[in-house]
Amino acid sequence: MAIRKIKLTIAYDGSSYHGWQRQANNLTVEEVLSDAISALVGQEVKVQGASRTDAGVSALGQAATIEIDSPIPTENLAKAITDRLPEDIVVSEAVKVPGDFDVVSDVKSKLYRYTIFTGKVRPVLEIRNVWHLPVKVNTEVMNEAAKYLVGKYDFKSFASAADTRESSVRTVFRCEVIREGERIYFDVEGDGFLYNMVRNMVGTLVEVGAGRWNPERVKQALEAKDRTKAGSIAPPQGLCLIWVKY
Amino acid sequence: MAIRKIKLTIAYDGSSYHGWQRQANNLTVEEVLSDAISALVGQEVKVQGASRTDAGVSALGQAATIEIDSPIPTENLAKAITDRLPEDIVVSEAVKVPGDFDVVSDVKSKLYRYTIFTGKVRPVLEIRNVWHLPVKVNTEVMNEAAKYLVGKYDFKSFASAADTRESSVRTVFRCEVIREGERIYFDVEGDGFLYNMVRNMVGTLVEVGAGRWNPERVKQALEAKDRTKAGSIAPPQGLCLIWVKY
Repeated sequence: MAIRKIKLTIAYDGSSYHGWQRQANNLTVEEVLSDAISALVGQEVKVQGASRTDAGVSALGQAATIEIDSPIPTENLAKAITDRLPEDIVVSEAVKVPGDFDVVSDVKSKLYRYTIFTGKVRPVLEIRNVWHLPVKVNTEVMNEAAKYLVGKYDFKSFASAADTRESSVRTVFRCEVIREGERIYFDVEGDGFLYNMVRNMVGTLVEVGAGRWNPERVKQALEAKDRTKAGSIAPPQGLCLIWVKY
Repeated sequence: MAIRKIKLTIAYDGSSYHGWQRQANNLTVEEVLSDAISALVGQEVKVQGASRTDAGVSALGQAATIEIDSPIPTENLAKAITDRLPEDIVVSEAVKVPGDFDVVSDVKSKLYRYTIFTGKVRPVLEIRNVWHLPVKVNTEVMNEAAKYLVGKYDFKSFASAADTRESSVRTVFRCEVIREGERIYFDVEGDGFLYNMVRNMVGTLVEVGAGRWNPERVKQALEAKDRTKAGSIAPPQGLCLIWVKY
């Protein structure tokens, strides 16, 4: 047998986990997945994820790679791993990739969706995966403001101070607010995102939607390159990583 | 102040509870609700529910009555109680009812919905509230069979042996199977339901949908008045009490 590099597509409800990335004392998706795969193939397997989603954040299309030396055919891997996972995590696909494929630096784009529920009554059946914000918000002005966030910019104003990566320049390809009944979806596609960037964008656009900010203030906040100039952070549970493209 | 009788409408995600009805050693929705109301009004309050939903079963419109002697206006009660509830339970409405209103025996009809997800990939974001059954089912023949269950019948074949109520005669007003993409909804409206009756109906109709039973066998199962003649029980998490009418 030879070592194979495999790209996995993973979906999870993040509400019971302390985020994706392995931690010493808290349960994370990476740890649960890595333990399941290690038990399956009988060797310690490291899982390299594309996105370090925060505690409470979910995914429908997280990507990750593993390197394994196992007789299990690639086409059977997704099911075999899933059979060892708890019900809130699933591996939906496993494909062989070249040995030099890099799940982090080869990313072309990612799509995040943030869901706000604006109805009065708490939506108990989806409360783990939405932000319940029972107020009137104007999505037209939110979309006006969202346009200022599309393009290649230094998004420092929208990054957590905990983000220690060298550059805070990212390209946002699309950023739009969609209303469907009592739900508001915020879809943002980009080549990468800083720590807390999407949640800070959502919190900022909500200031606009609630009428407390005019749309132009979002442009000013972006240009300031200063975290204190943007709005407050939206809670994690509304956020979902929809897909990662290579 | 005088004692007021209040009818509450309650929604809950049943996945974290051992059903509605109070138990000695397990957490139930009734207990959590009763504790919240008792703390709010400063007196022990008994909650009388319309339906004893099972462990894992959810509700969007459970009904219950309480009798309270409190200065809190009726129109403020739903919010005041909800403020003391965990995020997976909500009181969506509170209305004053006459003292002789009986939340159990005054029921005119109830609607239950059972949701099956037939897609291949486990739906992690809704797995607590659906039955994941990744197989092909024919909803046309299920609907043919469902027609035999509409009417006033002795539903003994669909009741748990644990149901000790005197009569097993109930009237089902409507029973239909609806396909929406990868989801199958089973809606059943009736004047009342025996213990496990809806889940046994679903399990039986799935036998038909999967091609293992012909629709007529459901009619024979009903007429047999024998639990062993119906299909096996569907799991609780797909079931939701949608509303109770008076």
